[in-house]
Amino acid sequence: MTYCSACGAQTVRKIPAGDDHERDVCEACGVIHYQNPKVIVGTLPFYQGKVLLCKRAIEPRYGYWTLPAGFLELGESTWQGAQRETREEAGASVEQGQLYGVFDLPYISQIYMFYLAEVVDGSYRAGTESLEVAWFEEQDIPWDDLAFTVVGAMLKRYFADRRAGVFPTHHKVMQPRQESWRGKS
Amino acid sequence: MTYCSACGAQTVRKIPAGDDHERDVCEACGVIHYQNPKVIVGTLPFYQGKVLLCKRAIEPRYGYWTLPAGFLELGESTWQGAQRETREEAGASVEQGQLYGVFDLPYISQIYMFYLAEVVDGSYRAGTESLEVAWFEEQDIPWDDLAFTVVGAMLKRYFADRRAGVFPTHHKVMQPRQESWRGKS
Repeated sequence: MTYCSACGAQTVRKIPAGDDHERDVCEACGVIHYQNPKVIVGTLPFYQGKVLLCKRAIEPRYGYWTLPAGFLELGESTWQGAQRETREEAGASVEQGQLYGVFDLPYISQIYMFYLAEVVDGSYRAGTESLEVAWFEEQDIPWDDLAFTVVGAMLKRYFADRRAGVFPTHHKVMQPRQESWRGKS
Repeated sequence: MTYCSACGAQTVRKIPAGDDHERDVCEACGVIHYQNPKVIVGTLPFYQGKVLLCKRAIEPRYGYWTLPAGFLELGESTWQGAQRETREEAGASVEQGQLYGVFDLPYISQIYMFYLAEVVDGSYRAGTESLEVAWFEEQDIPWDDLAFTVVGAMLKRYFADRRAGVFPTHHKVMQPRQESWRGKS
């Protein structure tokens, strides 16, 4: 941030009185501009023993497979946002979702929240952000071609839970080193 | 938002190409300024059968009781943020926290995440944002003087879970009408 979004004056980086973090502060109008982590919401969409994955048509990770997910919007519940992303990216309607995975990615100031949700009628259609959308049985999951580590972590938990027959809410703090693809081409 | 925080030009409200939400857009430098919900992290701190509550020394809800919680900062995990807030507001160190409650408040674009965590040695001290910090047995909880509906919801789940002997992660979407104090003085 360089300019105050409220008055247009230049901002400075400083620790405001009574605070202990550096902020972008406008000394002209007094506004303190806080920045906070963002929430990404999505689903693990299933139907008749298969899970629905999307092949990304956008960067980052163009051409890699992912679960439908995206930034939560103002005024949405996390489930509403997860439903919207699933409709937009996979053309699928999901119902009766339960909060299933919460992943902290503090190194990029993001939190992923996935819902486990059944696809109505199993129908789907690739959205503009997907090259392709397809159903996968467990043995066909493209583990080496997943877009993000959280996607693999969520899918692994799902197949383990399916064998155990219980689906608790999972929580995990991801580490940057787990993003092994970052070192690849 | 009135001015672009990147270049200082005036922004306009419009739906960018390929988007379906209105954003603050800078037509001078091209930056789209997204706004997203914020995450509030805190704990339900317990020790020897009691829970630790803080009497707020700040608005909103000055003088009402709450669980220690505050906005998640960039670069923090939700558990790190919950530990920090508990230290700042209640002067208490908590350990081995488990993600215990996730509350959606879409009408104010906030998500609360509470950890259930034991207080080391049971020691505490009121921080600058608290008038007072105290331990409460279940029968002494000031239900009518709690600061926020999510605090009451989390505490009720805790005492119910304690009787049942299991502490799963809870998820609830709050409704604005549940904020009954909004209609009070």
